[in-house]
Amino acid sequence: METKKKRVSETEMKLIHLAGPSDANNLGFVHGGIVMKLLDELAYACASAFAEHHAVTVVVNKVEFLQPVKVGHLIDLDAKVVFAGRTSVEVRVEVRTRDVLTGVSVLSNTAYLTMVALDDAGKPTGVPELVVETDDDKREWEAAKSRHEEFAKARAARKT
Amino acid sequence: METKKKRVSETEMKLIHLAGPSDANNLGFVHGGIVMKLLDELAYACASAFAEHHAVTVVVNKVEFLQPVKVGHLIDLDAKVVFAGRTSVEVRVEVRTRDVLTGVSVLSNTAYLTMVALDDAGKPTGVPELVVETDDDKREWEAAKSRHEEFAKARAARKT
Amino acid sequence: METKKKRVSETEMKLIHLAGPSDANNLGFVHGGIVMKLLDELAYACASAFAEHHAVTVVVNKVEFLQPVKVGHLIDLDAKVVFAGRTSVEVRVEVRTRDVLTGVSVLSNTAYLTMVALDDAGKPTGVPELVVETDDDKREWEAAKSRHEEFAKARAARKT
Amino acid sequence: METKKKRVSETEMKLIHLAGPSDANNLGFVHGGIVMKLLDELAYACASAFAEHHAVTVVVNKVEFLQPVKVGHLIDLDAKVVFAGRTSVEVRVEVRTRDVLTGVSVLSNTAYLTMVALDDAGKPTGVPELVVETDDDKREWEAAKSRHEEFAKARAARKT
Amino acid sequence: METKKKRVSETEMKLIHLAGPSDANNLGFVHGGIVMKLLDELAYACASAFAEHHAVTVVVNKVEFLQPVKVGHLIDLDAKVVFAGRTSVEVRVEVRTRDVLTGVSVLSNTAYLTMVALDDAGKPTGVPELVVETDDDKREWEAAKSRHEEFAKARAARKT
Amino acid sequence: METKKKRVSETEMKLIHLAGPSDANNLGFVHGGIVMKLLDELAYACASAFAEHHAVTVVVNKVEFLQPVKVGHLIDLDAKVVFAGRTSVEVRVEVRTRDVLTGVSVLSNTAYLTMVALDDAGKPTGVPELVVETDDDKREWEAAKSRHEEFAKARAARKT
Repeated sequence: METKKKRVSETEMKLIHLAGPSDANNLGFVHGGIVMKLLDELAYACASAFAEHHAVTVVVNKVEFLQPVKVGHLIDLDAKVVFAGRTSVEVRVEVRTRDVLTGVSVLSNTAYLTMVALDDAGKPTGVPELVVETDDDKREWEAAKSRHEEFAKARAARKT
Repeated sequence: METKKKRVSETEMKLIHLAGPSDANNLGFVHGGIVMKLLDELAYACASAFAEHHAVTVVVNKVEFLQPVKVGHLIDLDAKVVFAGRTSVEVRVEVRTRDVLTGVSVLSNTAYLTMVALDDAGKPTGVPELVVETDDDKREWEAAKSRHEEFAKARAARKT
Repeated sequence: METKKKRVSETEMKLIHLAGPSDANNLGFVHGGIVMKLLDELAYACASAFAEHHAVTVVVNKVEFLQPVKVGHLIDLDAKVVFAGRTSVEVRVEVRTRDVLTGVSVLSNTAYLTMVALDDAGKPTGVPELVVETDDDKREWEAAKSRHEEFAKARAARKT
Repeated sequence: METKKKRVSETEMKLIHLAGPSDANNLGFVHGGIVMKLLDELAYACASAFAEHHAVTVVVNKVEFLQPVKVGHLIDLDAKVVFAGRTSVEVRVEVRTRDVLTGVSVLSNTAYLTMVALDDAGKPTGVPELVVETDDDKREWEAAKSRHEEFAKARAARKT
Repeated sequence: METKKKRVSETEMKLIHLAGPSDANNLGFVHGGIVMKLLDELAYACASAFAEHHAVTVVVNKVEFLQPVKVGHLIDLDAKVVFAGRTSVEVRVEVRTRDVLTGVSVLSNTAYLTMVALDDAGKPTGVPELVVETDDDKREWEAAKSRHEEFAKARAARKT
Repeated sequence: METKKKRVSETEMKLIHLAGPSDANNLGFVHGGIVMKLLDELAYACASAFAEHHAVTVVVNKVEFLQPVKVGHLIDLDAKVVFAGRTSVEVRVEVRTRDVLTGVSVLSNTAYLTMVALDDAGKPTGVPELVVETDDDKREWEAAKSRHEEFAKARAARKT
């Protein structure tokens, strides 16, 4: 059986959330945990749609908080699959926050999450092949691949 | 001073939400009230961006529930301004729900909300002019305008 | 088998909620979506008790927001069935908000929701007959009936 | 200045909540903490309305859980002031749960909460006189008064 | 079969919660109901671990609110079993609140909850024997035992 | 002025949460975002207590999900400061999940978060010196320091 192929651009997925008062932390900004919950939800949706199976989070590789997010602003999250292994994928999520009245938007976070696709019995299952086309996609692939290999090595080391 | 003009297509705005277990009602579907909360948030954002002032909901004219929304599905809400009066606008919101794994999307709700723009003192304030271009936009404008006039008449009648 | 009969006054049902800080929107008032969630819950309870079957929302016909609701106030919702068709009913909900300290109460919203009763297989099922007695009840019945017929016509038109 | 007088029957206040899935505990019933949150809200509203000042909870004297509360049922809470001291009152709350479809209602909890009225500076402030009329009211008054005196003695003992 | 024995010190259990803005009541402090929800969760965990069966709340005997809890503070809850009957136990919970920046901690509440252990069919089931060692434990045991007996008597009286 | 010194062991801080049904994701486990919210709250508390100033999250360096967390289990989070720079610290958080009935506990996540201390004007402010004593602490310090330097370099590169 031939493996299905999908282009990076076909894997794009979005969430958009209006930050409200119940999202605030004790300093009056949007709770970092709310942003992380949205990241996790979008990575789940993006990886699951790509894999056509439910996917679970294995590693949140890195989340940078560049700007505090204001209550009352829109939170735009854009995800795409940037790397696909045998049963796991890496999803890149970019978080922008947008002032409702002015429309001005700033980059607030970037994150990389490793997700594993599971079959109905909860076992890792094969994912489609990812077709990388642009130079940007290639750079992302290489960086993700080296994180993937480092992680596989560390996990193997822990098991011995 | 000339009134600012904005085309209908410039007023488009989206929210996208992944429905989770805490959104469920007692029948196991997404609570109609959760859908209505998202409608209200998007109408607020769409009207406020158009008006460049915070807007408040005056009437939810009609919300049709065509399909129950399943927990675990994505909820895509698309709004645009379809009518602008002196200080009020009508926003149309279309709600589609999308199966994460298959990508299949169905129309779940359509809604029309009347919003009023407020200045910093909380008083109604003038909104830009809405430029209607397509035939579809014109039909929406006419329908919204007649709802608007009927509502104005009813409100006037109540006050006398 | 004779159809059960219920008088409008027997269908009355209430919810009462104390609005707290987590109900606030970005302007500091109670989120319109919270009010709509309560409306939906009460219409569900009122229609389901009348039908003696679970009922689902089909149309929120109109919700007028007459007064913003303040955080810290009590929200009193009063519902009754105002129209009954074969498998659907229309519920009228009145929302009043009450200052806890002074007891002063104002009308904040009125809403009309169309609900359909479902049997255990999720199919529409017959509802009792509604006995309308007062003049007020008759006016409500007529208005609801014309909305009902208009909606049935529109739905039929969409299907052809 | 004469102290204001209020009869027990004038102090009655209600909350009514439809228990939903997000109210469930890990055993599938309504979380005892949700019931206790509603108790606290109603005791606050009842005592504050009586005192015409915001009141805070000092003691939850006793809450009996007679029946587990089912998700999907209505929770009816009925409160009244049963004792008034100089700056504190005791509120009795009865919790009944009602099956939406059958209307059958059972007593689920009874609770007694001691609340203190605060002035704008956050200091205890005088409350109206409570007029006790029925035999039942008198029994409640006596029981509450003895709890009140015992508590005052215990607090005094702790301070020495 | 011999009954298992556990010492009071073996039954100690903790919850620690950072109070956030969505925990606030209308006076800006942590909602008493949030504290009561945490109390109930910890009493459940403490009694269930002791009994090695799920336990449900039967009575919240008394909760004293000594200090209002500030949003932004840590809430430390410490529980232990202080009395064990045949199928029920009494859990004592102490609530302290701690300023994150200074580390200063104050006693905010103490509470006693009676919990009953249930078997898989939902029927009361036997619990281990509690070994009481210190003088403090003995005093707690005696006080709890007299509350237990009084409650059993009242319940018996209600049934006749 | 001499800089204050604190030993790693003095910086230890905990949160303990009982996972309930409203924490579940669409697969029935605890939502990864809930775990990340708790991580963020504890890192905030741990860094702020160390710095004696409010701290904000700058980078979530890595969160590994070793085991799915079950609804109904206790989530134990243990944090300590493992590195301190001039105005930033790195906090290590270990997440264990514990079965309430059996007490069996498994390591579920480990995470490293970089936090910056802010003064009252919201500007980065100096933190105490961290005294590293054990070999384990030294290894953690070195790893954190190299992440810190890499991050500082990357941030500098972005600015040129």
